[in-house]
Amino acid sequence: MPHNTVDFQELLVRGQSGDKRAIGRMISHIETYGLTENLIMRQLWAHTGHAVIVGITGAPGAGKSTLTDKMVKYWISKGYRVGVIAVDPSSPFTGGAILGDRVRMNDLALIKEVYIRSMSTRGQLGGLSLACSGAVSILDACGYDIVLIETVGVGQSEVAIMNVADLVLVITVPGLGDEIQAIKAGVLEIGDVFAVNKKDLPGADRTSRELQMMLDMNPNMGERQPPVLMVSAEKNDGVGDLCDSIMENYGCMKESDELLTRRNRRLREELLAYMQDRVYRRVLAPVIEADSFDDNINGFLSHSRNPYAWAEEIVSQIEEKIK
Amino acid sequence: MPHNTVDFQELLVRGQSGDKRAIGRMISHIETYGLTENLIMRQLWAHTGHAVIVGITGAPGAGKSTLTDKMVKYWISKGYRVGVIAVDPSSPFTGGAILGDRVRMNDLALIKEVYIRSMSTRGQLGGLSLACSGAVSILDACGYDIVLIETVGVGQSEVAIMNVADLVLVITVPGLGDEIQAIKAGVLEIGDVFAVNKKDLPGADRTSRELQMMLDMNPNMGERQPPVLMVSAEKNDGVGDLCDSIMENYGCMKESDELLTRRNRRLREELLAYMQDRVYRRVLAPVIEADSFDDNINGFLSHSRNPYAWAEEIVSQIEEKIK
Repeated sequence: MPHNTVDFQELLVRGQSGDKRAIGRMISHIETYGLTENLIMRQLWAHTGHAVIVGITGAPGAGKSTLTDKMVKYWISKGYRVGVIAVDPSSPFTGGAILGDRVRMNDLALIKEVYIRSMSTRGQLGGLSLACSGAVSILDACGYDIVLIETVGVGQSEVAIMNVADLVLVITVPGLGDEIQAIKAGVLEIGDVFAVNKKDLPGADRTSRELQMMLDMNPNMGERQPPVLMVSAEKNDGVGDLCDSIMENYGCMKESDELLTRRNRRLREELLAYMQDRVYRRVLAPVIEADSFDDNINGFLSHSRNPYAWAEEIVSQIEEKIK
Repeated sequence: MPHNTVDFQELLVRGQSGDKRAIGRMISHIETYGLTENLIMRQLWAHTGHAVIVGITGAPGAGKSTLTDKMVKYWISKGYRVGVIAVDPSSPFTGGAILGDRVRMNDLALIKEVYIRSMSTRGQLGGLSLACSGAVSILDACGYDIVLIETVGVGQSEVAIMNVADLVLVITVPGLGDEIQAIKAGVLEIGDVFAVNKKDLPGADRTSRELQMMLDMNPNMGERQPPVLMVSAEKNDGVGDLCDSIMENYGCMKESDELLTRRNRRLREELLAYMQDRVYRRVLAPVIEADSFDDNINGFLSHSRNPYAWAEEIVSQIEEKIK
């Protein structure tokens, strides 16, 4: 698709000079056409690798949106440019933009140094996490210093989305009842920094202690113990410390090989998904759809030839070539 | 896996001589290891293509189990050997075998000319429809003249399962309330024969007429109009006519090119899925995991080399080879 390629190059230049509409069009392009057919990642790669990519997750009601809001404003006050991608994997219909969310987004969207965008599963080609990864790369390439990916819950797709991040902030609150259970169920492993929001509510101390205890007991934990911070997003209390802790954590990951290890693993996975899709579309599907395949299939369907032996032959040829 | 290959060949010989335990072990093998790694389809292909593969679907409560039961017994009385695969895609836990089902299955399982087996999504490698397709091939290769695939409802996975069949019987009943709606939602297109079960219930005639009308109006219908038959599975009334109608339909499909067209389309899809999986495991994953890839990835992660350009190169090499 040379047409798309040209467009995209031009949009990228415009996005890099601060044109938010151009950024929006690039992300919409990825949502609609996917990453693989239009060589977008090829064009973006040279421009990426600078942004700190932070995943933010937590149960509904934990106050993610409000806290994200305050964090964005803190970082802007420190001179950073911040991109926010709000992902709602469970809702194919709302586009992840319920009313309250829209209000907030309009608020942040007015700030020059902020780009904010919601993504849902609607119309994504090649999966939400791949589209999300593409959107992060676009914001990275357009000079956003910090990119936040905000998502709800701890399902399979949320974990896949959090894999796009360099490090993950998990938000919980006292009084959700099963908040600790919810964290046990999978978020404990992916969290690098934990925040107990609504710290002035009764039980906040206890929630924090329980969380700390669970982290102490977790055998899968690396040498670095994730910090647990208490904040109140509503009262803007402790948000700066949380932001600083995240950046300090990022700094440690960068100094040790942790960041490189994570990006290595992520890139391998993305390349595999990319190549699998490309080989399917450009090699395998054309073989099956070719006119010359008609002779084969007639032999197969009369059971005089073996289709799986034929397929093995094709795969062996490919294997031989790549060795 | 030469070990598996040898085992399977021996099991196949035993299954072909009527050993049901050997058949069960082959199907379990496919459930556990998938189709692609053990060349099972290669060994089976020469022995398959004889069975009439009938999909049976309908809403819960339509009486599928009872009707299937009676159909199996009718066909046995006509000298056929019949295999039944009861698929429950929605239940990963029960193994598709709720209590009533188990009773029924034990009943049929005692008959020498019948093989009956339930499959669920539990532990399937490569998807339920692929495993189901493998099970059908095993029964076909072991000399079952008719293989029935019974499944509930009309979701995406059910439609994929019905794609394994040569032709599909859709069962409905009067008084389910939204039975016509349910049919509208997707089954109308995949049905080759329709049965209105519980024909002595009030409203059965109307259900039949409405169904007929919808089939008349459907613009996607081919030249052959699917028959709508009224039966009572409970009273064993009309079951023979239904079975005969299915076989007559199959005969027409075979005489026209319809059967060949369907099997052609199905085989292409299966080959694509098979090759995609093989290429991923034997070519792409090894490339990414090779020691020599470490040099590449260091260049990628420092953003001095472009991983997507590298991936395109690999894909181009494969494409070149296969041309």
